[in-house]
Amino acid sequence: MKAPRIVIIGGVAGGASAAARARRHSEEAEIIVVERGPDVSFANCGLPYHIGGEIEDRSELALQTPESLRSLLNLDVRTLSEAIEIDPARQEVTLRSVRDGSLSHVGYDRLILSPGASPLRPPLPGINHPSILTLRNLHDMDRIMEKLDSAQSVAIIGAGFIGLEMAEQLVHLGKKVSLVELQPQVLPQLDAEMVQALERELSEHGIELILGDGIDGFEDRQGRPIAHLKSGRELVTDLVVLSIGVRPESQLAQQAGLELGPRGHIRVDAYQRTNVAHVYAVGDVCESPDPLLGGHVAIALGGPANRQGRTAADHIFLGDQALPYRGSIGTSIVRLFDQTAGIAGASERRLQMADLPYRTVTVNGPSHASYFPGASTITLKILWDPSDGRVLGAQAIGRDGVDKRLDVLATAIHGHLTIDDLVHLEFAYAPPFSSAKDVVNIAGFAATNIRDGMLVPVAHLEEVRDAQIIDVRPPAAVEKLPVPGARNIPLPTLRARLSEIDRDRPVCTICQMGKTSYFAARILANHGYDARSILGGAHHQAPRSA
Amino acid sequence: MKAPRIVIIGGVAGGASAAARARRHSEEAEIIVVERGPDVSFANCGLPYHIGGEIEDRSELALQTPESLRSLLNLDVRTLSEAIEIDPARQEVTLRSVRDGSLSHVGYDRLILSPGASPLRPPLPGINHPSILTLRNLHDMDRIMEKLDSAQSVAIIGAGFIGLEMAEQLVHLGKKVSLVELQPQVLPQLDAEMVQALERELSEHGIELILGDGIDGFEDRQGRPIAHLKSGRELVTDLVVLSIGVRPESQLAQQAGLELGPRGHIRVDAYQRTNVAHVYAVGDVCESPDPLLGGHVAIALGGPANRQGRTAADHIFLGDQALPYRGSIGTSIVRLFDQTAGIAGASERRLQMADLPYRTVTVNGPSHASYFPGASTITLKILWDPSDGRVLGAQAIGRDGVDKRLDVLATAIHGHLTIDDLVHLEFAYAPPFSSAKDVVNIAGFAATNIRDGMLVPVAHLEEVRDAQIIDVRPPAAVEKLPVPGARNIPLPTLRARLSEIDRDRPVCTICQMGKTSYFAARILANHGYDARSILGGAHHQAPRSA
Ligand SMILES: Cc1cc2nc3c(=O)[nH]c(=O)nc-3n(C[C@H](O)[C@H](O)[C@H](O)COP(=O)(O)OP(=O)(O)OC[C@H]3O[C@@H](n4cnc5c(N)ncnc54)[C@H](O)[C@@H]3O)c2cc1C
Ligand SMILES: Cc1cc2nc3c(=O)[nH]c(=O)nc-3n(C[C@H](O)[C@H](O)[C@H](O)COP(=O)(O)OP(=O)(O)OC[C@H]3O[C@@H](n4cnc5c(N)ncnc54)[C@H](O)[C@@H]3O)c2cc1C
Ligand SMILES: CC(C)(COP(=O)(O)OP(=O)(O)OC[C@H]1O[C@@H](n2cnc3c(N)ncnc32)[C@H](O)[C@@H]1OP(=O)(O)O)[C@@H](O)C(=O)NCCC(=O)NCCS
Ligand SMILES: CC(C)(COP(=O)(O)OP(=O)(O)OC[C@H]1O[C@@H](n2cnc3c(N)ncnc32)[C@H](O)[C@@H]1OP(=O)(O)O)[C@@H](O)C(=O)NCCC(=O)NCCS
Repeated sequence: MKAPRIVIIGGVAGGASAAARARRHSEEAEIIVVERGPDVSFANCGLPYHIGGEIEDRSELALQTPESLRSLLNLDVRTLSEAIEIDPARQEVTLRSVRDGSLSHVGYDRLILSPGASPLRPPLPGINHPSILTLRNLHDMDRIMEKLDSAQSVAIIGAGFIGLEMAEQLVHLGKKVSLVELQPQVLPQLDAEMVQALERELSEHGIELILGDGIDGFEDRQGRPIAHLKSGRELVTDLVVLSIGVRPESQLAQQAGLELGPRGHIRVDAYQRTNVAHVYAVGDVCESPDPLLGGHVAIALGGPANRQGRTAADHIFLGDQALPYRGSIGTSIVRLFDQTAGIAGASERRLQMADLPYRTVTVNGPSHASYFPGASTITLKILWDPSDGRVLGAQAIGRDGVDKRLDVLATAIHGHLTIDDLVHLEFAYAPPFSSAKDVVNIAGFAATNIRDGMLVPVAHLEEVRDAQIIDVRPPAAVEKLPVPGARNIPLPTLRARLSEIDRDRPVCTICQMGKTSYFAARILANHGYDARSILGGAHHQAPRSA
Repeated sequence: MKAPRIVIIGGVAGGASAAARARRHSEEAEIIVVERGPDVSFANCGLPYHIGGEIEDRSELALQTPESLRSLLNLDVRTLSEAIEIDPARQEVTLRSVRDGSLSHVGYDRLILSPGASPLRPPLPGINHPSILTLRNLHDMDRIMEKLDSAQSVAIIGAGFIGLEMAEQLVHLGKKVSLVELQPQVLPQLDAEMVQALERELSEHGIELILGDGIDGFEDRQGRPIAHLKSGRELVTDLVVLSIGVRPESQLAQQAGLELGPRGHIRVDAYQRTNVAHVYAVGDVCESPDPLLGGHVAIALGGPANRQGRTAADHIFLGDQALPYRGSIGTSIVRLFDQTAGIAGASERRLQMADLPYRTVTVNGPSHASYFPGASTITLKILWDPSDGRVLGAQAIGRDGVDKRLDVLATAIHGHLTIDDLVHLEFAYAPPFSSAKDVVNIAGFAATNIRDGMLVPVAHLEEVRDAQIIDVRPPAAVEKLPVPGARNIPLPTLRARLSEIDRDRPVCTICQMGKTSYFAARILANHGYDARSILGGAHHQAPRSA
């Protein structure tokens, strides 16, 4: 192929990355980047942090400008230019100037679509109120910041990653924040029991948390947007930020006959090719082969968008010699004040929906050596395939070191490692960083113990109503957080007090962190008891919500 | 087997872990832990930090006591009891009481050796001076702390992990510190160019660094130990701390006819079995199958000792159903004031000694999103096998996030991942934690670029004396840190100034971080030049020492 003309629709994460990589393949290629907005290459992920003032300087968010892309990469960047039609037969795109509405046509040898996704704005009554905003780009950010000048109270609708980031930043600004989420938990990407500490963190920072409730509609009252909740409640605020998810920007692709998935994403293969010749799609708009569960999956994240853009560019120049995209496992993370929580791979919910068998373990362990100052507890949950032990997912929450454990487990998932591998991963250990047995090893120990029958786990006391519950904590700990219905036999006295425990009924042990109760259950099992142990300790035993 | 009697020699990392795991397998086993010293289960790794006061409370270092091991695990702990002979034929160990020298015998069904290693104390003149100390256990620590009460200046001999930790902590205490190292670099476990920032850090904290010099002997002068260096220099101090390595405590094993490796370590298999029936060895004393380079390897670290102890206990109860130990890759790390450095897997030196082919790449990238406050630069070096791309080693240095990248790469090495895998690892990205393309991905990009010919790397300017050196940084950066012999053509002007560069001679580009110079080299290569690019940027171009 002589130097191709490559047209790229969308000039931010996926699009700019594709353009940059394409230029590194060829100086002669003509590379045209079409962007509807005024900006390219900006840090979407930083938007909440500029709103909250943590990123002080707005210009930090512009990683590149149209000018810098021109001068560094010799790109033909056409901002304020919307692609409104693709003609795959003629290999041509129709552009409309956002300034004056004028139309133009541009032909392509290769077309890369990276138009992203737009925030959902459901067609509810009153949704067009000028104080109901969404956040996707610099312009959205500016509008929110303008409104915040005079807003005292803000309702955030949707407690996913962006909703939580916004909640934190708005508290930094001294706003009164309400957070509304349709699901009975925040961060529904994670399993419910893993986010309880986030929910406490929100409440402790004065955020009103409204879970399991949705929006019926909005109403204007003296210029303020009033939200009517499904529960009948009325939420009176100065500003509403909608963060309930995104919809792929695939109308254009649909018109052009590109194959879409069930939720409207452009379907691509491992080289980011669509079903139409010479047309690629990358980033939030596409769904690519799911490396975990089979089928296709759409993961709207910055890293995947960047690397998919790079993959498409590679395929244009290298063909099938290019390194294929490996699929997204959805590794993601959020900092919420002093807590950090995140996930890599599949949650229980996703595995249930896919009807795949799995087992889980949850352990607590220190962020670094417990004898070294500053250690805090990380709660780590692992999901694996019972047939071969392969790790399918991991979730973690804690104050420190959560990102590290998620990245390790993302690597393990990517590499098809098993719970046996987790046992023997050899981490960088010095007291400020880790423990001789890191919490990831501990998760491997506990998971293999479950598989091997050394540990018979119980997720929740409610599952063992018929058992004798033995609380093996020291009496002082029991006093602080008693477990209803449990008898206290501290671990060091257990062997001497076995006669107090009925051999003919199952026993379930419980403690603070899940470790001592395991030790106790081993003693009991080795003495012939039918002994189980509560995973994760007493803290996880709040009565279950519906 | 009826419940066995297990005798364990050494009651700290490997020994106590083996005992604990054995008890969880069986309540009936008789488990006898023989320990020469007064303490068991203490945190060796924390010793320097109590000396420096960072771990305030000495009792934090005692993770368990003989009493707690008795009451929690029903262990028969015999402290101040030295094993002085093993009779494998009779399955018997001879013990000598440290208190009164009395002898006793104890039979075993299974024997686990975890006697550790002792600090090297070479037989130099004057070595027995009372102010020349080593650090292995609580007693050593107490002695050093006593001496420090009156010591103003301290010489540390050996700049490995423990030497560096001690140097940092002694500066915290306000001591005048000299650090002497025989090799021409600190932390000889890492490759020389990776530790230059550590060397700067030491100097900036007022530590006198004496590299490439060894000790000829010591002399007493009015009670102070005077060190005579090989260079002829005399070092006058109040206290000498020797941290030049350890020697496995394998005399006992040797007498008993156990097979030893070339440096005196007990050779074991993947179940920690020695060549003698019913005798296991774990921890610093053993060498186990090397998962990276073949043969056997001795890695003296806390994590391996703990997990090897656990493996030996498993094998006693499960036989070959036990999960074998996977071998140690030597992941290790040190914090030195504001810098952190570490390694996972093999260094260049180890690969050269093993005569194995390898390739390397070094990249710089931000610890988290560059637009978010607090980001600092991580320098990451990767070594891989050119035949299949498998990652063989990684080294990293920086202020923040070094432990995370090392743990990810340790996981990759364990899982036999390749440089292609690094390209597509999907990390937890939000601005406080990472970047859309994490530095580990960047290393994967650059490594695959080298393999695929997109990047022709140069480690050091001295390798390309015949080339035209083009410095593509902005003039201001060049002024601050000029590169001798380089012409400055800032990247944005490069395309317009190609005519200034001779097409018939090789070109080598250089910049601050290694990224812009790569971009420039791509432009040049795509215009037909023979173009190379300096890895790691101008900072790594200090003239080479011998
Ligand atoms: C507030 C916020 C916080 C986020 N935080 C994180 C985070 O912490 N971690 C993370 O991994 N991800 C995060 N993301 C997600 C991440 O930003 C996206 O996954 C990524 O930007 C997707 O890249 P993309 O190229 O597909 O789309 P985008 O980066 O959105 O770029 C698409 C561009 O295409 C343009 N466009 C659309 N249609 C047309 C058209 N017809 N013609 C011309 N131009 C068009 C749009 O104007 C837009 O500029 C966040 C997103 C937001 C909004
Ligand atoms: C100051 C210091 C800092 C360290 N920092 C780190 C770090 O940050 N990260 C890391 O991974 N590792 C670190 N280590 C190394 C780690 O502590 C060891 O690798 C680990 O303790 C080895 O475990 P082990 O069971 O083999 O030996 P040890 O833990 O040393 O235990 C051996 C025990 O056996 C006893 N013993 C020996 N011979 C006999 C005998 N004949 N009879 C009876 N008892 C006997 C000894 O008294 C000793 O208590 C550090 C070590 C030191 C000294
Ligand atoms: C700014 C943008 C155009 C940069 O694209 P890019 O040039 O591909 O990316 P980077 O600046 O990270 O540089 C990566 C390139 O430099 C190379 N590189 C980086 N550091 C290097 C080093 N120290 N030595 C050698 N090469 C290095 C990499 O190999 C890669 O080149 P390759 O793709 O040819 O292998 C694009 O990422 C973008 O628009 N980002 C903003 C939008 C966004 O990502 N939003 C979502 C997250 S907030
Ligand atoms: C203190 C010492 C005796 C502890 O041994 P241990 O009981 O095996 O280790 P831990 O306390 O970390 O507990 C690990 C066990 O608890 C289990 N566990 C830990 N947390 C758990 C949780 N939340 N839920 C369920 N199980 C858990 C693990 O599975 C493991 O049990 P297993 O081996 O039967 O699988 C031993 O490690 C020691 O002496 N350490 C000090 C010396 C040392 O290590 N020095 C070098 C480094 S400083």
